[in-house]
Amino acid sequence: MSNRPQPVEYQDASPAVRAVFDEIKAHRKISDVNNFWKYLASDAALLKRTWEMQKAVLAPGTLDLVVKEMIYLAVSITNGCEYGIACHTALAKKAGMTDGMFGELVAVVGMANQTNRFADAFRLPVDAEFDV
Amino acid sequence: MSNRPQPVEYQDASPAVRAVFDEIKAHRKISDVNNFWKYLASDAALLKRTWEMQKAVLAPGTLDLVVKEMIYLAVSITNGCEYGIACHTALAKKAGMTDGMFGELVAVVGMANQTNRFADAFRLPVDAEFDV
Amino acid sequence: MSNRPQPVEYQDASPAVRAVFDEIKAHRKISDVNNFWKYLASDAALLKRTWEMQKAVLAPGTLDLVVKEMIYLAVSITNGCEYGIACHTALAKKAGMTDGMFGELVAVVGMANQTNRFADAFRLPVDAEFDV
Amino acid sequence: MSNRPQPVEYQDASPAVRAVFDEIKAHRKISDVNNFWKYLASDAALLKRTWEMQKAVLAPGTLDLVVKEMIYLAVSITNGCEYGIACHTALAKKAGMTDGMFGELVAVVGMANQTNRFADAFRLPVDAEFDV
Amino acid sequence: MSNRPQPVEYQDASPAVRAVFDEIKAHRKISDVNNFWKYLASDAALLKRTWEMQKAVLAPGTLDLVVKEMIYLAVSITNGCEYGIACHTALAKKAGMTDGMFGELVAVVGMANQTNRFADAFRLPVDAEFDV
Amino acid sequence: MSNRPQPVEYQDASPAVRAVFDEIKAHRKISDVNNFWKYLASDAALLKRTWEMQKAVLAPGTLDLVVKEMIYLAVSITNGCEYGIACHTALAKKAGMTDGMFGELVAVVGMANQTNRFADAFRLPVDAEFDV
Repeated sequence: MSNRPQPVEYQDASPAVRAVFDEIKAHRKISDVNNFWKYLASDAALLKRTWEMQKAVLAPGTLDLVVKEMIYLAVSITNGCEYGIACHTALAKKAGMTDGMFGELVAVVGMANQTNRFADAFRLPVDAEFDV
Repeated sequence: MSNRPQPVEYQDASPAVRAVFDEIKAHRKISDVNNFWKYLASDAALLKRTWEMQKAVLAPGTLDLVVKEMIYLAVSITNGCEYGIACHTALAKKAGMTDGMFGELVAVVGMANQTNRFADAFRLPVDAEFDV
Repeated sequence: MSNRPQPVEYQDASPAVRAVFDEIKAHRKISDVNNFWKYLASDAALLKRTWEMQKAVLAPGTLDLVVKEMIYLAVSITNGCEYGIACHTALAKKAGMTDGMFGELVAVVGMANQTNRFADAFRLPVDAEFDV
Repeated sequence: MSNRPQPVEYQDASPAVRAVFDEIKAHRKISDVNNFWKYLASDAALLKRTWEMQKAVLAPGTLDLVVKEMIYLAVSITNGCEYGIACHTALAKKAGMTDGMFGELVAVVGMANQTNRFADAFRLPVDAEFDV
Repeated sequence: MSNRPQPVEYQDASPAVRAVFDEIKAHRKISDVNNFWKYLASDAALLKRTWEMQKAVLAPGTLDLVVKEMIYLAVSITNGCEYGIACHTALAKKAGMTDGMFGELVAVVGMANQTNRFADAFRLPVDAEFDV
Repeated sequence: MSNRPQPVEYQDASPAVRAVFDEIKAHRKISDVNNFWKYLASDAALLKRTWEMQKAVLAPGTLDLVVKEMIYLAVSITNGCEYGIACHTALAKKAGMTDGMFGELVAVVGMANQTNRFADAFRLPVDAEFDV
């Protein structure tokens, strides 16, 4: 019995998993899905739900895709999630994030993490104007 | 002796603290600074450094102010920092965030927190293409 | 001088550390303790206290061991603690967690991390019925 | 313009939101939805997706509902999310969690948060047996 | 059935709980225990274990009590735990933390939270000299 | 286009970056800066601001350097930041932290992370005496 989760490759996948993999590849115009989807595929229902949520959340809307990917990256950095950081740095770049934008994002993320702790340390009461 | 940190009001502030308060008010075109600055003012050096960092990080650059404030808000939500959430929801709105943009931001932040945990749970190896 | 903490192996251990190692091995029916205990052993009092707490918390009670190990794993995933995830995935499996149960656990952990952020983002007031 | 998110009450809701509210009330046999759903309702698509995910994840499966709710609670405690803690303490009790089970859950959650930090502090290498 | 945990007051406590309360009061020279102990008392074994651990960890050792309390406070701020921040600000002050020391602690805690995120964002490889 | 951030070595650095590197090396009496600074150098303004903040925060004050470095380490452990843990274990040792002090620090950090979760789980009201 394996203790480490194992990826599901296309050739070994059930028809239900293959259908999701096919849709991801067509939607993103890529030749193979990345590890995130191969590991989630060990639970076909989880895979399908997660893909449908991600497709809906990242669909064209009010915010540009590059902004959504930068928010995704900001959260991943704050959580210290190595995979999320690697993945969404690449996807944000693909969506248009330049090195200059990355530097500004990192600066804001760092400052927010610092000042969030200042707010907690001083036990700040929320200003009335923010509570309207 | 008080156990709860206390704010410093303008009339009680040292000249060094007043100078920072004056600069914040002029820079942001507001009549009084919010609680964040009044509590930080108990340590004049910390107040001054924090303001100078914030002014530099939020200065016009490659990213629009509304994007920077939305990243600030995304981090504050991820940290569960009540003050940061209240403050940067208001500041992001002031910079142009609509209710629709807020809804999309919350959706991305929630999804990122979910999928970061999936990545850790499955102990995902980083794909070679993200490590170039 | 080493900067990285070093494990204590049985043959180099003090009698106090050996006594704890022996008890862990007998209690868990294993031939050697895992790295967690070898590194903690650099502080014999910390090792002893931690083992006694763990023995008491994981002792037979109202909850089955497999449920306790799954809760342990859910926390480790939420903290993004690689060692805790690897260790408690294995221990939960040993206690009876199937792949199907793991998939459901991961789905709940992911959803909880997502909806916790929604709750904070919307600054939800606690419903009266939950505060009875 | 309000800075604090506002709940959507049934009488003011759009047909799309009412349909989700009706389904939650029927599914959970309650007379009104709790604040979580009223605030999410400011974004009808987010409301619908979140409810469908929650319904699927908490549906009968391999794990009992009380175990799923306890895992939900363990994550909420680890995240320090006040609303999630209040809500899922109540829902876990409704699903059968006794005071004794709550005490054991809290003990495991506390211990896991402690030992996760020990693992990181000592920079523990993952044991080979956990990586099979 | 109450959904919110309830404190155990001395007059309603079992002999086992009273014994722990008496020891805390004698050890800390206080007339009543604070809420932390009253709520933990709903699980007598958890109360006893937690007090014994705390007594051992905060006992005279190599580090001064004020340093231990400041480390406790730094962790509580990083976790955004309101109760822990309030409690350990007071206990650190009782042990000798001045306002100047508090200001320096907050500055270090904020900076560490900021630079931890920089380290993750840039995916820093650990320098060889730190891995000796 | 590289997806992984790249370090800036001295020989390839701009004059502005070299000036900061030179100051760090002179201030810390080291022959080369560590990876933290080489990666931050991809954004010269971020590098300069971060160094000036760190120099100010770690300058001689009320707290000894070893205490500041131990607080830095306690935060890094709580955040699970591998680089921060490795770096500040080494820097704290350089500033005088012995193995005994490290063991006591780890014990306090672990206990604080445990009891913070107890405080949240029981939804503890802050005692009046802590709110004076």
